[in-house]
Amino acid sequence: MDFIVNRKVLLDALSKVSRAVSPKNPIAALIGIQFDFKNDRLILTGSDSDMSIQVTIKENLKINQKGSVVLNSRYILEIVRKMDSEDIHIFIVDGTLTRIEGNNSKFQLNGMSAFDYPRIDFSTEGVHFTIHAFLLKEAIEQTVFATSNKETSPAYTGVNFKFQDNILNLTATDTYRLAKKTIKTDSDALFDIIIPKKSLNELSRIIEKDEVVDVYVSDRKSLFVFDDIYVRSRLVEGTYPDISRLIPQSFNHTLTVDSYKLLNAVSRATLLLDEKDDYITLTMDSENVKVSSYSQSVGSVEENLYDAVFKGDPLKISFKAKYLSDAIRSLNTDKVILLFVGNMRQFIIRSYDQKDNDVDYSMHLILPVRTYN
Amino acid sequence: MDFIVNRKVLLDALSKVSRAVSPKNPIAALIGIQFDFKNDRLILTGSDSDMSIQVTIKENLKINQKGSVVLNSRYILEIVRKMDSEDIHIFIVDGTLTRIEGNNSKFQLNGMSAFDYPRIDFSTEGVHFTIHAFLLKEAIEQTVFATSNKETSPAYTGVNFKFQDNILNLTATDTYRLAKKTIKTDSDALFDIIIPKKSLNELSRIIEKDEVVDVYVSDRKSLFVFDDIYVRSRLVEGTYPDISRLIPQSFNHTLTVDSYKLLNAVSRATLLLDEKDDYITLTMDSENVKVSSYSQSVGSVEENLYDAVFKGDPLKISFKAKYLSDAIRSLNTDKVILLFVGNMRQFIIRSYDQKDNDVDYSMHLILPVRTYN
Repeated sequence: MDFIVNRKVLLDALSKVSRAVSPKNPIAALIGIQFDFKNDRLILTGSDSDMSIQVTIKENLKINQKGSVVLNSRYILEIVRKMDSEDIHIFIVDGTLTRIEGNNSKFQLNGMSAFDYPRIDFSTEGVHFTIHAFLLKEAIEQTVFATSNKETSPAYTGVNFKFQDNILNLTATDTYRLAKKTIKTDSDALFDIIIPKKSLNELSRIIEKDEVVDVYVSDRKSLFVFDDIYVRSRLVEGTYPDISRLIPQSFNHTLTVDSYKLLNAVSRATLLLDEKDDYITLTMDSENVKVSSYSQSVGSVEENLYDAVFKGDPLKISFKAKYLSDAIRSLNTDKVILLFVGNMRQFIIRSYDQKDNDVDYSMHLILPVRTYN
Repeated sequence: MDFIVNRKVLLDALSKVSRAVSPKNPIAALIGIQFDFKNDRLILTGSDSDMSIQVTIKENLKINQKGSVVLNSRYILEIVRKMDSEDIHIFIVDGTLTRIEGNNSKFQLNGMSAFDYPRIDFSTEGVHFTIHAFLLKEAIEQTVFATSNKETSPAYTGVNFKFQDNILNLTATDTYRLAKKTIKTDSDALFDIIIPKKSLNELSRIIEKDEVVDVYVSDRKSLFVFDDIYVRSRLVEGTYPDISRLIPQSFNHTLTVDSYKLLNAVSRATLLLDEKDDYITLTMDSENVKVSSYSQSVGSVEENLYDAVFKGDPLKISFKAKYLSDAIRSLNTDKVILLFVGNMRQFIIRSYDQKDNDVDYSMHLILPVRTYN
């Protein structure tokens, strides 16, 4: 193996594929990135078994001799990041000992044989649909934070992707709050799968341009293809619980409020609370809307939202502050509306401008707790 | 206690005094900041016993009723930081329960009685001299990083301030490397003290304007006075070892090199090394200067410094990379000179432009290790 490649092109590719690599993987080869060639292209692959990323470099590349090697992900990434030459010369010195050269710098890395690297299936099989990259990125960011960290209920650690009747629904919940994104598309497909949150987080971070993403869903994997990038993820086994009956359809109280003011009020209301005990109370009637919190040992906070508009009978409802802040931030809109059924019933947050028949619909649901003060 | 104060003025004062507060202090009152009044001024005090900071607010202040209270440092700082009103109204509701109000926000904090707060001696006693704030800040930053973390040799955990014959010398060492700053002044004083590193770090962070600092040194404390700020520190007990004989006076080899290029070469040369084992080797003759490193398990690096100018017989010397990077960064100059006696002898780094009779003189010394490769 002997080739010369533009440093920035290689750095960009390594930054992407290394996202799939876990430095503590028990399989030694998976701590590395595989360098390989196919049809005069350099193929870089990173994987942690659950998710795998492959990037192809076809330009700014001069191949002197083909070959393959696996190089430690952290070291090769840092080397290429810190080198200062325009091009980098990479070649095998002996066996898997690899030289990386440019300008005044010479690195030698003990590599691993590509024979020890697992064969990863990036085949474009199964159900196919296309989606705009930024819409996919937004959909992931607006749902993935609501997934659970508890491995005891694997289904909730991923996001449910359900495609039916030209509608793609993304749903995530940790059973205390729920995020749902609905996208109406021209594509037609039928599936109901769960994708692990880690794969989605990394996929979302890799998306930089608003191009078209080809998605392939089979029984065994989901595959996202764009640019010269393949992102492959295993699926979470099992079926996603039907959550549609959890979402109330009619409401008795509504609160319309400036997103930024509500976020700031919630942020101040939680100043005296522990992160894991950040319960706040909304007390609302037609005259006053306030956010409050109380801590026996530290003190109390009261925030008045003078500009908020509340409709309905007076209502007092308590819940975890972080759930509300996460939801408002993810909606990324100037004005939100909170829709309530009653004191101990789950409530909904969505953008004030959201219409039920929007092509792109986003909503959040929070389960309240008993109000003690 | 009942007063109204400008939010930004209070925030600035709280940010400063809270630097002395340790949130885990076993003395409950010291987790707080003391609010007190003296001559129609608000006096804020924070302390961890070792160091204490006092800030006086005399403007943008309306006192309705004097009094005192101790408020948890973290909470009061965060409250004032996150409030959005121009002025803040602070008053005692009952006992030590304190209300903090502004715009739409009302906070109540359970305070502590000022009777439980230790009396801290901020008296301006002992030997007095003055120094420009930015020169003091620079002198601290150019030495304090070389102090030791080992509490077994307390003297080395602080910086030695030695004033004699119109010269102030700051010296810090962890016995493997040494930093020395010499300042020639018009002031006259005579002392030889050790100030704990934590006090100096916080003092340096608080200095924002280049004003004149009044320094008072007594047997028990050092006191730095500027603006409306008093920073008091205990002294480290014991005498500082005489390190003057450690500093070589004549040299057999010199290396002149661009600071930025050397820093980058060192940074790349340590990429494959553990932080605690970051030993690099300088191999120098009149033709070539290179920085190299070797790790049995990972690989090797070789960096050529083509622009460096070496004078003297060929020399190979190994040392901890971090010591060299720390020294170069602290010198903050375009070009450095390294002065060597021989292979296993301590060597010196200083700015290339530095003259022996400069009013403001800075140098660093590093102890080499045996070269294995």
